[in-house]
Amino acid sequence: MNQPIRGVLAPVVTPFKADLSPDKERFVAHCKWLLSQNCGLVPFGTTSEANSLSVEERATLLDELVAGGIDPSRMMVGTGCCSITETVKLTAQAVTLGCAGVLMLPPFYYKSVSEEGLFRYFSEVVQRVGNDRLRIYLYHIPPVAVVGITTGLVERLLAAYPEQIAGMKDSSGDWNNTKMFLDAFAGAARTFDVFVGSESFLLANMRNGGAGTISATANVNAAAIDELYRECSKPRMDTNLHELQIDPPSRKATARLDLEGLQADLDVVRGVFAKYPMIAALKQAIAIYRNDPAWAKVRPPLVDLTVGQSTTLAAELKAISFTMSPQISQQPSPSYGSPWISAD
Amino acid sequence: MNQPIRGVLAPVVTPFKADLSPDKERFVAHCKWLLSQNCGLVPFGTTSEANSLSVEERATLLDELVAGGIDPSRMMVGTGCCSITETVKLTAQAVTLGCAGVLMLPPFYYKSVSEEGLFRYFSEVVQRVGNDRLRIYLYHIPPVAVVGITTGLVERLLAAYPEQIAGMKDSSGDWNNTKMFLDAFAGAARTFDVFVGSESFLLANMRNGGAGTISATANVNAAAIDELYRECSKPRMDTNLHELQIDPPSRKATARLDLEGLQADLDVVRGVFAKYPMIAALKQAIAIYRNDPAWAKVRPPLVDLTVGQSTTLAAELKAISFTMSPQISQQPSPSYGSPWISAD
Repeated sequence: MNQPIRGVLAPVVTPFKADLSPDKERFVAHCKWLLSQNCGLVPFGTTSEANSLSVEERATLLDELVAGGIDPSRMMVGTGCCSITETVKLTAQAVTLGCAGVLMLPPFYYKSVSEEGLFRYFSEVVQRVGNDRLRIYLYHIPPVAVVGITTGLVERLLAAYPEQIAGMKDSSGDWNNTKMFLDAFAGAARTFDVFVGSESFLLANMRNGGAGTISATANVNAAAIDELYRECSKPRMDTNLHELQIDPPSRKATARLDLEGLQADLDVVRGVFAKYPMIAALKQAIAIYRNDPAWAKVRPPLVDLTVGQSTTLAAELKAISFTMSPQISQQPSPSYGSPWISAD
Repeated sequence: MNQPIRGVLAPVVTPFKADLSPDKERFVAHCKWLLSQNCGLVPFGTTSEANSLSVEERATLLDELVAGGIDPSRMMVGTGCCSITETVKLTAQAVTLGCAGVLMLPPFYYKSVSEEGLFRYFSEVVQRVGNDRLRIYLYHIPPVAVVGITTGLVERLLAAYPEQIAGMKDSSGDWNNTKMFLDAFAGAARTFDVFVGSESFLLANMRNGGAGTISATANVNAAAIDELYRECSKPRMDTNLHELQIDPPSRKATARLDLEGLQADLDVVRGVFAKYPMIAALKQAIAIYRNDPAWAKVRPPLVDLTVGQSTTLAAELKAISFTMSPQISQQPSPSYGSPWISAD
C-alpha cells in the first residue's frame, strides 16, 4: 500500500481549445509543471470546471493524463457526480488506474437531503466500486455544492468503511468548521486526513494535525505554498522561528523566516486572485505567465476576464511577484510551447 | 410544425428495480396511464430524479419510451445538465426523436454566475444542437438548482433565438415571480409560454395568460388538474361560475362548480403530499394505488418513506379520495401488472 497523499495539491485548471473541447496537451504540460513544484494533482475539482465537463470527457482526460506520463500515485481525482452510476464509473476508473484517492462531492442537485440519504449514497458507491484500494476524500464545499458533509455523516461512514474513508477537503472557508472536524476525528482508529480548501488556513491546519491543502491558487503558487507545508512538517526547536535553507535565486534576502511570515506572503497572493472570479483569473494568470492567450478560456456558465480585468490582474501580479513562487515566471515550460515568461 | 405543448404535464417519476436500475416496463406503463388522463409528459424533471440518473441512463430510457409507443409530441424532455456537452447530447436526441420540446435547467453547479455566462451557455447549446425544431422551456427552480432564470436572460435569449426559446417552467413557488414573467413577455413578438411548477397556481396562471402547469402531483392527480385547465380554457359567459358537463361516475353531485372550487380541491391533494418528502411520497402513493410495493423505491440521496409515513399517507389519501382524480383508484392499469386499486 502506498503512503497516503498529503501536502499541497492543486485542483488542476482544465485548458480548453477554441471550440471549448479539453486541451490534452496543455493539460498534461500543466500537470507536469505542478508535479515539478512538488504539488500533487486533483484533476476535476471545482477549479477544474469538472462539472462543466461531461463524464465521458473526464474519463477520457484521466486516461490521457496517465498515458501522458502523469504518476497516478500523485493524483486524487474528483469523481463526485449527482448520480451514483456516474460517480461509480469515474471512481472505479481512478482506482483501476492506481490513483492515490478520489475527492468526492456529495450528490449536489437535491438540497436539504438527510444524513441517511447521503450515507446510503456513499455506501452504495463504496460497495459498487468494491475495491480495497479505494480511498475517498469527502468534499465539503457548501458555498458551491450547498449540500455539505457533517461530522455525523463521517462518523457513520468511518464506522462502516474504515479503510475507504480516508479524509476530507474542507472548502467551507470557515476555520471553526475545519477545527471541528480535526478535533472530532483526531483520536479515530484510522487517520482521517483533513485538507483545507484554501492555503489561507494551511498554517492553522498543520498546527492542528491537518494533512495539507488542496487549493485553487496552487495552480500558480505551488512552490511557495509547499514551502510553508514543508516548514510546518519539519521537526523544530520552537514552533515558530526556524532556520531556512534558501537556494539562490532566492525570493528573500533574509535567511530567517517565521511560519507566519510565509503564511502572510501566501495570503497576499491569494488576496489578489480573490478580487476576481477565481477560476478565470487563474487561467488568465497562466496565460500571462506562459504568454499563451489560449489558456484564458473557460466554459460557460463561467466567463473569461474582461480585457480591463486582465490588465489589472497583470499589473497586480507584477506588483506581488516577489512573494510568489519564483518558478512560475522563471522556469521554462517542461514539455510544450512557450516558455514561462515574466508578467513584466 | 406541431402546436406547442400546453396544458397539464407530469414530471414523470422514474421507477427503479431492486438494484436501483431504471425499470423500463413500469416507466412506460406509467407514461401510458398519464397520457390516458390527457396529461403530457416531462421525463427527467426534478420529480423524475433525473440528476440521480446518468446521462446514458436518461438517453436509454428516452429511446425506450419512444420504442414503447409513447408519442414524442406529448413529451417535453428534461435535458439540462451542468455541462454543455451533456445538455447538447440529450437535447439533440430529444429533437431528433420528434419531442415537443425540452425543459432545460441552467447549469447548476457554480453559484452566483453572471447573466452573461448563462446567456453564453444557452447560446452554445442552441447553436450546437442547430435544429429549427428545437423548442426550449427554461427551467426556473431556485429552491433546488439555486441558479435561476431572470427576465433579463429571457429577453436576451428571445432576441437571439426567437424560434427556439418557447417558454419556461416557474418552480419558484412565488406567484409574484410568475406574474412578473407573464407580464414581461405578454406582448412579445413570439408567444412565451409560462408553466407553473405547482397546480396551486394553475388558476392564477390561466387567468393571466399562462400555458398550464408541470406539476409533480400530476403523477397521481392528473385528471383533476386537467379538469381545471380545460375549464379555464373554455369560452364562458363569466369568469368564474359556469355549467359543467359531468359524466357519471362523477366525483361531485352538483353540476355547478366554480373554478375556485376546483382549485381548492387540487390544493387539498397537494397539501397532503406537501407534508412528506414529495418524490418519495408520490412513489409510495403509486405503490399503494397499484398495489405494487416496488414503485416506492427512490435513489439515494433521497430516501423512501418510513413504514410509519407510508401508513399515514395511505390513511390521508383515503380521507381525500373524493377530491382526487377518480381514475387513479378505479381504472385498471393499461399495460402491466396489478390493476389500480383503492387506497382503502
